Amino acid sequence: MMKIICKQEKLVKALNIVSRAVSQTSTLPIMKGILIKTEGDIKISLSATDVQLSITTGIDAIVNEKGGIVVGARIFTDLIRKLPPGDVLIATDERDNVSIKTEFSEYDISGKKEDEFPRIESDEEGKKISLNTENFRNMIEGTVFAAATDESRGIITGVLFEIKEKGLSLVALDGLRVAIRRENIDIPKEEEMKAIIPGRMMKEIGRVLSDSTEEEIMLDVGESRLRLFAGETLIRASLLVGEYVKYQNILKECKIKVVVGKNELLSAIERASMLKSEGKESGIRFSIGERAITLSSRAEEGKGKETVFAEKEGDDLEIGFNARLVIEALKTIPDDEIELNYNTGISPCLIKPREGDNFEYLIMPVKLSSFSV
Amino acid sequence: MMKIICKQEKLVKALNIVSRAVSQTSTLPIMKGILIKTEGDIKISLSATDVQLSITTGIDAIVNEKGGIVVGARIFTDLIRKLPPGDVLIATDERDNVSIKTEFSEYDISGKKEDEFPRIESDEEGKKISLNTENFRNMIEGTVFAAATDESRGIITGVLFEIKEKGLSLVALDGLRVAIRRENIDIPKEEEMKAIIPGRMMKEIGRVLSDSTEEEIMLDVGESRLRLFAGETLIRASLLVGEYVKYQNILKECKIKVVVGKNELLSAIERASMLKSEGKESGIRFSIGERAITLSSRAEEGKGKETVFAEKEGDDLEIGFNARLVIEALKTIPDDEIELNYNTGISPCLIKPREGDNFEYLIMPVKLSSFSV
Repeated sequence: MMKIICKQEKLVKALNIVSRAVSQTSTLPIMKGILIKTEGDIKISLSATDVQLSITTGIDAIVNEKGGIVVGARIFTDLIRKLPPGDVLIATDERDNVSIKTEFSEYDISGKKEDEFPRIESDEEGKKISLNTENFRNMIEGTVFAAATDESRGIITGVLFEIKEKGLSLVALDGLRVAIRRENIDIPKEEEMKAIIPGRMMKEIGRVLSDSTEEEIMLDVGESRLRLFAGETLIRASLLVGEYVKYQNILKECKIKVVVGKNELLSAIERASMLKSEGKESGIRFSIGERAITLSSRAEEGKGKETVFAEKEGDDLEIGFNARLVIEALKTIPDDEIELNYNTGISPCLIKPREGDNFEYLIMPVKLSSFSV
Repeated sequence: MMKIICKQEKLVKALNIVSRAVSQTSTLPIMKGILIKTEGDIKISLSATDVQLSITTGIDAIVNEKGGIVVGARIFTDLIRKLPPGDVLIATDERDNVSIKTEFSEYDISGKKEDEFPRIESDEEGKKISLNTENFRNMIEGTVFAAATDESRGIITGVLFEIKEKGLSLVALDGLRVAIRRENIDIPKEEEMKAIIPGRMMKEIGRVLSDSTEEEIMLDVGESRLRLFAGETLIRASLLVGEYVKYQNILKECKIKVVVGKNELLSAIERASMLKSEGKESGIRFSIGERAITLSSRAEEGKGKETVFAEKEGDDLEIGFNARLVIEALKTIPDDEIELNYNTGISPCLIKPREGDNFEYLIMPVKLSSFSV
């Protein structure tokens, strides 16, 4: 029998965090549940898991009787969200009924026994490192979109997480593009780490970090799983096992360098990509001239031309790109000015910062003849 | 040949207004168009129509050459929205190509001749009246949700608009409920008006008025159409023709009167309605006692009970309601305190203000046996 009192506001925040791990697809009712458990006399924990991804978080509570119960994630979350701020009393009985009471409300929902809930393995320790929450979240956002999403693509549905002498890097790719983010952090040689985190989980981790008020997180990277500690919250994600693809040295020396304003280029591509054939991706011709990039697009409805001023070194070039791939990369770049690097009309474009190597986006071109621009 | 210059910001606002009349279902391309026309030397008008509903609005422009053209609503609106604020030059050529230019952008889309656009009839004058925009918008919002939406239901898919000696009233009903809003306005006897406005159009009118900055609107009610003037904007809506159903005197004297806080009652019903069987409407038992209303609900997942304090005159009562119908009515009521009136467990509930008759909502009960509460 469990009996606790906690604040509705805190419970809602905790539910928002753990709900991200509730299975959307499982047919087992227990997998759509959230485990509530007392932790000593003044705390409770909430946990959800779809086996691959598990999230646990804790909040303050008055524990009158210790215990645990599994509640249906949907109904419990909906109810708690709708309750007014203030004290919520949660109590279970011997038949696993869960009673939820506030001053004027009283709900009884059926729960399930704690021991039916999948065990979240507390396995061996891995290598540990502390990271700045916001930086890490930005790095996730700046790479995860580029990972392959089709589960049949195997290892490249993951994001490569790597710590080497240079610092931390995240890499994602899907055959049409590569996204790399780097951050310099000082670490001793023995702390080198490598892990491939499934993209889907990386997205959920990014979302949990967005809501977090913790300045620092701690990562614990094992052989087959990663654990992330953000204050009271613990995320456990299974890793992809195998060798990540060789992505380095795809691009050597670039003969053409263009410096351009990121926002101007992004707006121009977004406009030009309005003109596209229904159901098709938008192809855009980049005409790189002496002082400007001219973007052109064409569809049944009409044609468009955009001019973006730029500084160029090297020859003129005509090259085509899938607008979506370029837009997705530009959107996550924090810098105002960026450098575009090209070699030929059939080799990829490398997008870099004007200085440093905090990010690198490599995008394959499309044949100009494949769209009538 | 038309040649104009106007501000992107103003064009976007005008497109937001007229887009509401663009046909979503027509297979004729011209019906998915927006007519742009010069009006003298310093103005252009934009119009869209699905024949039943037409909206025209005007904005300032520099007219270099007079003319008109029909552009595809989707592509034109998407493009203009993405352009930066500032001057936009729009010009047509003899082949009805439309060129849209700003400092760095240049688009050419194909247009259609002005005379292919459906004529918006400028028919006989009707009876005219001025109304306060916000009041009228609130009255629309407070009734239109209750109109029948199934087109086969005929006249009750419309909202009854009536001006009599008492003032203005709007009425909508669908067999399960009646929504009435009233507003006292002084009008001479000869200005009595009556019209049945299709609910779908009433919704669009409400949305246009939400965006309007005009304090007053002018209505011109004819036999078969209504015209609404809000500043530069003219809305023309076809009316439903026929006799509206007799909705008066459905409820006579009420034996049980309950005064209750609207927000408390609304929150309690919203929570209680969380417990409902999947795919079914939520039925809620109202137990009206001496000092409080107790709401109860039940589903496979569990059961709930809410207590809302209330002042009652008359006998106790047990009665069931479809939660959605009560929620929809309460949500549009501006008052903090409301009066619920009942007779028996099988007669409707009348929701009124504590004083006056600005609104009346009548809701049919459901049999308590039809849901297991």
